[in-house]
Amino acid sequence: VIRWGVAGTGGIAERFTNAMTLVDDGAIVAVASRRDETARRFAERFGITRAHASYEALAADPDVDVVYVATPHSRHATDTLLYLAHGKHVLCEKPFALNGTEARAMVAAARESGTFLMEAMWSRFLPSYRALADLRDSGTLGDLRFVEASFGFAAPLMPEHRLFDATLGGGSLLDVGIYPLHLCAFLLGVPDRIVATGVVGETGVDEQVIVGLHHESGALGMVSSAIRTNLRCDARIVGERGVVDVPAFMHCPDRLVVSTVSGSRTIECGWEGDGLRFQIEEVQHCIGAGRTESDVMPLRDTLALADVMDTIRRQIGVTYPGEHS
Amino acid sequence: VIRWGVAGTGGIAERFTNAMTLVDDGAIVAVASRRDETARRFAERFGITRAHASYEALAADPDVDVVYVATPHSRHATDTLLYLAHGKHVLCEKPFALNGTEARAMVAAARESGTFLMEAMWSRFLPSYRALADLRDSGTLGDLRFVEASFGFAAPLMPEHRLFDATLGGGSLLDVGIYPLHLCAFLLGVPDRIVATGVVGETGVDEQVIVGLHHESGALGMVSSAIRTNLRCDARIVGERGVVDVPAFMHCPDRLVVSTVSGSRTIECGWEGDGLRFQIEEVQHCIGAGRTESDVMPLRDTLALADVMDTIRRQIGVTYPGEHS
Repeated sequence: VIRWGVAGTGGIAERFTNAMTLVDDGAIVAVASRRDETARRFAERFGITRAHASYEALAADPDVDVVYVATPHSRHATDTLLYLAHGKHVLCEKPFALNGTEARAMVAAARESGTFLMEAMWSRFLPSYRALADLRDSGTLGDLRFVEASFGFAAPLMPEHRLFDATLGGGSLLDVGIYPLHLCAFLLGVPDRIVATGVVGETGVDEQVIVGLHHESGALGMVSSAIRTNLRCDARIVGERGVVDVPAFMHCPDRLVVSTVSGSRTIECGWEGDGLRFQIEEVQHCIGAGRTESDVMPLRDTLALADVMDTIRRQIGVTYPGEHS
Repeated sequence: VIRWGVAGTGGIAERFTNAMTLVDDGAIVAVASRRDETARRFAERFGITRAHASYEALAADPDVDVVYVATPHSRHATDTLLYLAHGKHVLCEKPFALNGTEARAMVAAARESGTFLMEAMWSRFLPSYRALADLRDSGTLGDLRFVEASFGFAAPLMPEHRLFDATLGGGSLLDVGIYPLHLCAFLLGVPDRIVATGVVGETGVDEQVIVGLHHESGALGMVSSAIRTNLRCDARIVGERGVVDVPAFMHCPDRLVVSTVSGSRTIECGWEGDGLRFQIEEVQHCIGAGRTESDVMPLRDTLALADVMDTIRRQIGVTYPGEHS
């Protein structure tokens, strides 16, 4: 059985912990927080054996094989490097890092330690994204020409919330924009030209962003993200021979509508339980097979995505504290 | 009664001529083409009294008050200047001109001659666009934050067709992209930052384009256009207090769906007959009142739209023959 530690006790850590109950051959044996009480409360609530009062204590726990890093964005690099240095495998929540520089350091550390590392881009492991990969690869759609995808919701301005806090890597791009950007990357590969514009709010983070992605193939990607605006949160994939409509929410759809000259059909691709389960299964499968990264979500894709977000942030003028501007 | 001449005999001239039958107090009394036979055939088919074998002959026709310029995009400036020089009022088909330089010359000429001039941006006169203006101005939606609109269809590559012919001002932007750009301008005003990327095909025209528009108000506009890709052709308008979904086709919708905290409602705003009738009525109203431009579609809006399209073409690398690159 694969023994998991969870670093962080926020909403995504809760979801992950619940999802783990759906997975065979793995269990969460430890949780860590910066505060003893928070860790203990989380451990009690979810029946986890050990609660660590620091992230370092989890790193030193000899009975943990792999750590799920679910700390704030701004800590992902630090915490991942800590666990890799202690020989742990790591599944790091998205965004993998604040920027490409951090991401490269994390990948280099994993190659150094010979341990497994993956960004928790859970969408890619869902049945619907597997179906999208089949559509992409089967030629059903012909050459892809245009992908549009959006993710945005209207939160009230809450300066103290992590979404609006630049020191925690806030803003729409890293939190939700990463999903439509990931879809474009998944389908169209690495862009050769990126144009972006956005609105930076009073707390210094991007509140809404528009991105145009140009690819050598002649395909375009159009992405929008927001934390103060209700966007469609769906996607549309246009190929020369067919169109796929991806209903909201585009990062975890349970059906796809495929339209070609022969008509329109719906691919039902729902699942039982929390969709995070599929990425957990992948991590366990890779670790069990002695692999250091996933074929489905390789680290080069993570680095490319980080580079795209860096370029977008440069164009819209968002720099996180401590970053070279 | 206002006496119209039509310059050009293509598809839009036919639609215009049919729409004129719905309008009181106006009639088409002459048509012109470069070829005598084409003009005569059009005149016979639609029961028009005089057929002119050149655009110049129409300009010299003393019994014509106003000319509808429906020649290819690349002729709009030349033909409009010709008719203005002969003291005719002019309704010029969209795009008004190939670029802002041409557009400014046309506006200057109209001010010189003291005659009426308007771009045939017929959408703006439709009941649905009047309803959009009411929504914009009434505060129902709160401050506007985001407008997205697309217009694109998948034509086969036809190098000899005007859509693909750079010498005729082909490409998606001027032909269909102008509609979503116009919607953004109509709702958000003049952008202070424009980013664009696009795909230029083998004939040198833009086959698909993505545009991000940033406005001083903090609102963003997201536009896409295409002539080889089926886009949604709809629009979505997001304000702080409500959303309007504009169904396809966004340039002539017959209903709007308005969603606010108090629920969702559909505004039915269909009409009888061809929607071109409303702009014709506006032109006749203005001419009858001795006005030289329309309050609803003023020339400054036409110039601003031309400037936006110039900026986009510079960014995507489309230059028409004869333009300074």
